[in-house]
Order: sequence, then C-alpha cells, then structure tokens
Amino acid sequence: MDKTKELDIVRISSETIDTKKDLVIREIPFSILVNGKEIVTLLCSPDKLNYLAVGFLLSEGLIKSASIIKSITIGKDGNYADVELDENLQIPQGFFQKRIISSGCGRGAYFYNPDDIKDCNPVASDIRLSYNLIFDLMKEFQEKSDLFKKTGGIHSSALCNQNKIEIFAEDIGRHNTVDKIFGECLLNHVSTENKIILTSGRISSEILVKIIKRKIPVIISRAAPTDLAVGLAEKMGVTVIGFVRGKRMNIYTQKFRIVEVEHYGKKDF
Amino acid sequence: MDKTKELDIVRISSETIDTKKDLVIREIPFSILVNGKEIVTLLCSPDKLNYLAVGFLLSEGLIKSASIIKSITIGKDGNYADVELDENLQIPQGFFQKRIISSGCGRGAYFYNPDDIKDCNPVASDIRLSYNLIFDLMKEFQEKSDLFKKTGGIHSSALCNQNKIEIFAEDIGRHNTVDKIFGECLLNHVSTENKIILTSGRISSEILVKIIKRKIPVIISRAAPTDLAVGLAEKMGVTVIGFVRGKRMNIYTQKFRIVEVEHYGKKDF
Repeated sequence: MDKTKELDIVRISSETIDTKKDLVIREIPFSILVNGKEIVTLLCSPDKLNYLAVGFLLSEGLIKSASIIKSITIGKDGNYADVELDENLQIPQGFFQKRIISSGCGRGAYFYNPDDIKDCNPVASDIRLSYNLIFDLMKEFQEKSDLFKKTGGIHSSALCNQNKIEIFAEDIGRHNTVDKIFGECLLNHVSTENKIILTSGRISSEILVKIIKRKIPVIISRAAPTDLAVGLAEKMGVTVIGFVRGKRMNIYTQKFRIVEVEHYGKKDF
Repeated sequence: MDKTKELDIVRISSETIDTKKDLVIREIPFSILVNGKEIVTLLCSPDKLNYLAVGFLLSEGLIKSASIIKSITIGKDGNYADVELDENLQIPQGFFQKRIISSGCGRGAYFYNPDDIKDCNPVASDIRLSYNLIFDLMKEFQEKSDLFKKTGGIHSSALCNQNKIEIFAEDIGRHNTVDKIFGECLLNHVSTENKIILTSGRISSEILVKIIKRKIPVIISRAAPTDLAVGLAEKMGVTVIGFVRGKRMNIYTQKFRIVEVEHYGKKDF
C-alpha cells in the first residue's frame, strides 16, 4: 500500500501563491488480533504490517519465537492483522482485555513497570565500533530515508551489523519503526544480538526497554536521549550515542564500545 | 522541578574528543489518579503537572468544567497527581480500569473510535489570519522554545490569539504539550474558542481530535500533517497549516481563513 497520498495544497512562499499537488504521509488505524480477538489498535504507516503485528506481540512479551505463529492474515485494506498462535500457548490473563495502548511520545508505559525488564540481564556484547563506522552507517541511514525527504513526516530506524544496514523500517510512530524491524527479524530468523539500532527519533526509556529485550548493545540517533533512557542504558549495559551529525556525536553511556574512546580512555576516562 | 539534568558525556568532533557536562532532557513516569484510584501512567517532562493531569482528564472526556474539581494533590517528587472530583460526578464504567494508554507517535487510539468526536460539531469560527501573523507567531514560538535549543529533545505547543502567544508548554510527549495547555486553560478560565494552536511536531489525527474537542479552528506546525489529519480537518472545519519555515508555508485545509488566499481565491480557488 502507498505510504503517501497526493493532496491539493496551497503553497505560499515569499513571492508566490500556488495551488499544487503535494505528497502527504498516510496514517491508518491498524488493529492487531490474536486468534481472532482484537487486542490493540495502533496508528501507523501502511507497510510491513505483518512485521508490525509480530514485532508488537514480541515487544509485549506474548510471543518469544516464530514457531508458535501458525498464520498471519492481513485485512485487504490493511486495517487489521490476525495472528493465529498455537492454541497450546499460555496467554496471560488480561491480555485480551482490549486496550488503548501505547508507547509513543511520552505516553507509553513500559519502563516503570518493573516486570518489563525483570527477566532481562544487562546486555553483554563484545562489539566495538569506530567513529568512522558510526558516521558511515548514519550517512547510509539518511540516504535511505527518502520518505522523510518527500513528506517530512516520518520516523525511521535500522538494524545494522558492523558493516552495513540489514533491515530498515519507516513509520509515523517511532515505536512502530523498531517493532517492524523486530517482527521482520523474528519471521526471517535474523538475530539481533551484537547488532546496532539507528533511529531518527529521540531515545526515550520506552525505546530502550525494547532494545534491551532484544539484547542489542548499541543505539545511535541523530536526536537526543532522555535522562531516564541514559540511566537505564548505563545500568543495562547499552551504549547510547546521540546527535550524530556530520562528523560530530555525543556518547552518553558504555563508552568502552567506541574504540577510539576506549583507547584514549586508558589514560583519561 | 528541573526539566533538564546535567550528565557527563563524551563529545566527539572532527578534531577533538572531550569529556564534558551536557544537559539532557528529563523524562519521568507520572501517574494520574482520580479520587485516589490510578487510571494511567504517562512519561512526561516534570513541569505543569497539575495542568497535565487536568488536561488529560479533559481530553479523555471525564471532566468538562473546572467546577467539579475539588482539589489536585501533586506527589512531592512529581510522580503522581491525585485529582479529587465531586463525588456526584458520574464516572463512566471502566474508567478506573487501569490502562496502559496512549496517544503518541502512532500509538494512540482516538480518531478511529467514532465515540470520540460523535458529540463534536464542525468548528465554526470566523477567525481570519494573514500570512504575516502566522510568520510572526511562529517566530515568537521558536524564540520561546529554549529547552529545545538546550537539549534538542523536546516538543512544544502554544495557544495563541490573533496577536500573540497566550500559553506555552513543553514536554517530551507531543500530546502532553497540548494537554498541558488545555489543563491550564480549564483551571485559569481561558477560552480556547477562536484561538490558534502552534505545535512543533507532526499534525496527526490524534492531535486533531483534541483540537476539535476544544473548538480550535486553526493548527499550525513547522512539521507535516498526515492524510488522516487532513481528511478529518476538512470534515470538521479546521484549518491545517504545515511546514511554516521562514516566509514559506503549506495550507492544507479550510483555506478561507487565510485572508490573502481568501482574497486571491475569489478568482482562482
């Protein structure tokens, strides 16, 4: 389905006033059902909906492996996905209580529920990154973000190894971008361990909880982290890098994974 | 409470590597209680918490006027607000079902619930705006957004009349910025009719639903709207203006409120 829609707009500039066609980002309500029962409705961009549904259930902790998924049915208008799970799966009581849920822009509810990360260990990964790798990945990431360039209205995230971007996702919702990636990983058997997440948006505590659950040791953004995310990352062994722009960046936590800093750090850190 | 926190970071630039203090935006979990019962926990920036609590309840439809609020108690660490409402208020069944709620970044659940705007009429307002007013308001708005300049990690919104900004709010959550404004309006008896909302973030359907409920006829952003927001605005009589940058802007809906376009439009629109 198209992620953009052409609309008639009036464009004003200092010298002209024109009626013209312009691309606007699409936003659709998308319901996720499990075994025919609706559990949540998200607003999202209409692509990779199978990955979004599975990634959401993974981030929510309902599924842990692809083996319990029997089928995924997507409504023809993209308005729902029904994920059929093995009927022997123990579904936690209350999961089917239809929820107005979320985890976006300060309206989520993950981190401060200790249950969310109580089973998580700090992320132990020997991965090391050089400045140049970070700058190169961010350059590739920005070149891929063509929908943003067209419409100015979308977030993107990418899963990278130490060479290049492996999986890329765009969505109007910051959280949906990472859930799409994790859903794609689960369905296509791509490991997330020792990988890197790049994201266009702010690094908040909720995004960080998702990263920790997938054992991802590094998150990198052009934007800022919050103090809650930084504190959680320090505790849980995740390297947080923000404000990567041109040849500049800020390293907030777990600096040892950045080789030049580690090296330099033998004297001064 | 401070909206920022000073942390030690490593800053890399093309020629230097420094350990230095830097300001990071704070993010706190904030629970809203009604008559002692918790109904939701948000992640937010720790200021104007009384307004956020009241604005949230207003946007959710639980309260319609300040007269039913008997008291607001804020936890000393800002971790909760308990809003005491008149005990004669009929509270809808299910409201006290503790929810993981949201309405941010594509994870909300307002628009596609027809109940949300079923009692709303299209916004009827005779307000007219000139280009220069829009450019001037946006300039004032950006000058006010100093927290963004310091930390790069926050959204802001403002309620304006046809001369200037009346109320300004910042938060890590786009939705919280408008709820803070509407809570302040309710508690301080400021009307929202015939006013303008400026916002730093994307104009999504969920933000638009909040605007319609407050009978606000114009929303203006530096960023993009979604197609769902544009469609809803056209139907509900709201003027949507995006990409206001320097002396440029895009007008998406209800163009008649922009005086130069209205004038010009007598021939060509």
